[in-house]
Amino acid sequence: MTRLILRPGHDRRLRAGHPWVFSNEIDRMEGETVPGAAVEVHAAGGEFLGTAYHNPLSLITARLLSRKRESIDTAGFFRHRIGEALSYRQKIYGSAEALRIVHGEGDALPGLVVDRYGDVLSVQFLTLGMEKRRDAIVEALQQIFQPQAIVARNDVAVRELEGLPQGIELLLGEMPKEVIVEENGLRFSVDVPGGQKTGHFLDQKENHRALQGRVEGRKVLDLFCYSGSWAVHAARYGAAEVKGIDISAGAVALAGFNASLNGLEKVCSFVRIDAFEALREMTRSGEQFGTVILDPPAFVKSKKKLPEAVKGYLTVNRRAMELVEPGGYLFTCSCSYHMDRELFLDTLRKSAAQAGRSARLVEMRGQAWDHPVLLNCPETEYLKCAVLQIL
Amino acid sequence: MTRLILRPGHDRRLRAGHPWVFSNEIDRMEGETVPGAAVEVHAAGGEFLGTAYHNPLSLITARLLSRKRESIDTAGFFRHRIGEALSYRQKIYGSAEALRIVHGEGDALPGLVVDRYGDVLSVQFLTLGMEKRRDAIVEALQQIFQPQAIVARNDVAVRELEGLPQGIELLLGEMPKEVIVEENGLRFSVDVPGGQKTGHFLDQKENHRALQGRVEGRKVLDLFCYSGSWAVHAARYGAAEVKGIDISAGAVALAGFNASLNGLEKVCSFVRIDAFEALREMTRSGEQFGTVILDPPAFVKSKKKLPEAVKGYLTVNRRAMELVEPGGYLFTCSCSYHMDRELFLDTLRKSAAQAGRSARLVEMRGQAWDHPVLLNCPETEYLKCAVLQIL
Repeated sequence: MTRLILRPGHDRRLRAGHPWVFSNEIDRMEGETVPGAAVEVHAAGGEFLGTAYHNPLSLITARLLSRKRESIDTAGFFRHRIGEALSYRQKIYGSAEALRIVHGEGDALPGLVVDRYGDVLSVQFLTLGMEKRRDAIVEALQQIFQPQAIVARNDVAVRELEGLPQGIELLLGEMPKEVIVEENGLRFSVDVPGGQKTGHFLDQKENHRALQGRVEGRKVLDLFCYSGSWAVHAARYGAAEVKGIDISAGAVALAGFNASLNGLEKVCSFVRIDAFEALREMTRSGEQFGTVILDPPAFVKSKKKLPEAVKGYLTVNRRAMELVEPGGYLFTCSCSYHMDRELFLDTLRKSAAQAGRSARLVEMRGQAWDHPVLLNCPETEYLKCAVLQIL
Repeated sequence: MTRLILRPGHDRRLRAGHPWVFSNEIDRMEGETVPGAAVEVHAAGGEFLGTAYHNPLSLITARLLSRKRESIDTAGFFRHRIGEALSYRQKIYGSAEALRIVHGEGDALPGLVVDRYGDVLSVQFLTLGMEKRRDAIVEALQQIFQPQAIVARNDVAVRELEGLPQGIELLLGEMPKEVIVEENGLRFSVDVPGGQKTGHFLDQKENHRALQGRVEGRKVLDLFCYSGSWAVHAARYGAAEVKGIDISAGAVALAGFNASLNGLEKVCSFVRIDAFEALREMTRSGEQFGTVILDPPAFVKSKKKLPEAVKGYLTVNRRAMELVEPGGYLFTCSCSYHMDRELFLDTLRKSAAQAGRSARLVEMRGQAWDHPVLLNCPETEYLKCAVLQIL
């Protein structure tokens, strides 16, 4: 097999459990180099470190799939690895059917995301290495799940860093007319080929449950509500009234449908309006809520744009805090990887100071357990969810 | 009332919700200055910011108790404030009887800690300001709780920064022969006048519950087990065998008693041995565990000693990781305020790298909800509990 030899001293990250090799860490390649193909990674001293796929076009030139000498190209390899990921989840979630089955690096499958919505799988091939192994992966998924359909949600910008086009594709089977999944005993309709990300936000499952005890009898506002997961949970947990806001007409319609699916349409109402505009308006009118949920899309897509994004989070959180009645709660999230936990907390501190409100940090939560974080690969962690009591 | 006037620009922390004034931020005092007495705090421009008590001997010279002009010296003031803290907890914990009722700054009562163990209250007066208000506080506590006894656990080094002596004192009533409290449906005997801190570690309540699903059928090791809270929870949640280790003979005896109290004495065994020594020995013998719990006392008592303490955490976590069988769990804690979340995680990353083990960060947890964190007073947050799956 082709050998990738690292420069001296550049084996530390790999040895610590991180699966990436950056282009400037490579001393030389020995043998034929076919983009996407498997390579053996060796330290400068010659020691074997693992088997990776590589892409000379990408800054992250190689990603380790195994610490052993083994084929990483077969359906058998993926069946085994995906099987391990599935068994990890079954221990936590039992037979739950709406789960992230593979969370890329967090499941030792860099560049691959597999989400399960009942009989439908929604897959993302984020790297050339995974794209090249598509058939083996689809075969493995078919053997494990016998799904009705497998959809590739490759409409993600990150693929361009790998020289790959964006697109949405039906890879196998036929899409059912409607996909309805259960989460925390509630039912949600999921738009697999057309929805946000892979169709639904699976990463907030446990955070939704944290609404319990913090919405009962209250008036709740759900900003950037998308398909209404937060709103419907708030209604189920006893909110007196839930108002969801989203700029997308499709999202608002889907959210309304999801409320009806759970018999909560009388408690929930959804309005199509830009959340920033709505915030300004409600601040002016002095409307107050018992609990506000602020789960915006990622403001930061790159490190360069971080300062600008921080300003955005600062403003939107200040305004949200101003809408919370004394003693009420704010659930505020950031799914931007570049906005780390401490920076997010620091931003919230400034928002509170600007709003002239004191706040308790009741809980600092993260992403759902089916989105595992690899300790020595901080890039696997992205979601923060702070539960604040605004005094 | 005596007025404390801040230097220009030094009102920002207070305005952001933090209650402390440092000695170098004070421009002048106007009026009589009696150590411990109430003062009005004003910005350089004259604006009133709140009512504080002050201690010229302390680096933290004043702590704000109120944003209003009101007396902070009466039983009525404390009754109201403690009542608010109690009502916050009742909403979360219902009628639970083993709770931190007042968490100092986190409950707008800087320098005061009140823990409730059934009919007994264990109180810490951490500042001169609170010490001087002891009678009013005891009166308020008596009115709210009608306790059988109130014990002052003033055996804490931090009192010396305030010029106060250390000691343990019965302030009211009579100590019952035995104090037994319930936590998560389990029963624990608490040594109120003689135990660690105020008698029991109330700050791990929710973290103990996180053992569920991560100990069943496993062999569990509880390092620094103290009175056996973690161990007994692990046994209740289905561990096959639990071994607790502590250097204190009293702790080991109490832990054994607590296991019996819950009918779990056949699952749990407790050994009196230094945990560091035990770790070295088990590493040598190659003993393995399904789940290891590492909840050591604070290694860092001051910022100056931080580098040394980091080394301690690094070693102890590396050794603990080496004892976990592949796929098993490590619950690892730090209750050192100076070891912040990111530094703790970073230390764990290094431990994993040194141990040559890959690890998943399953959950990053904090302190129990009855130890509320004030967003703009980071000093109220101290406990970290990382749940790792060691691969």
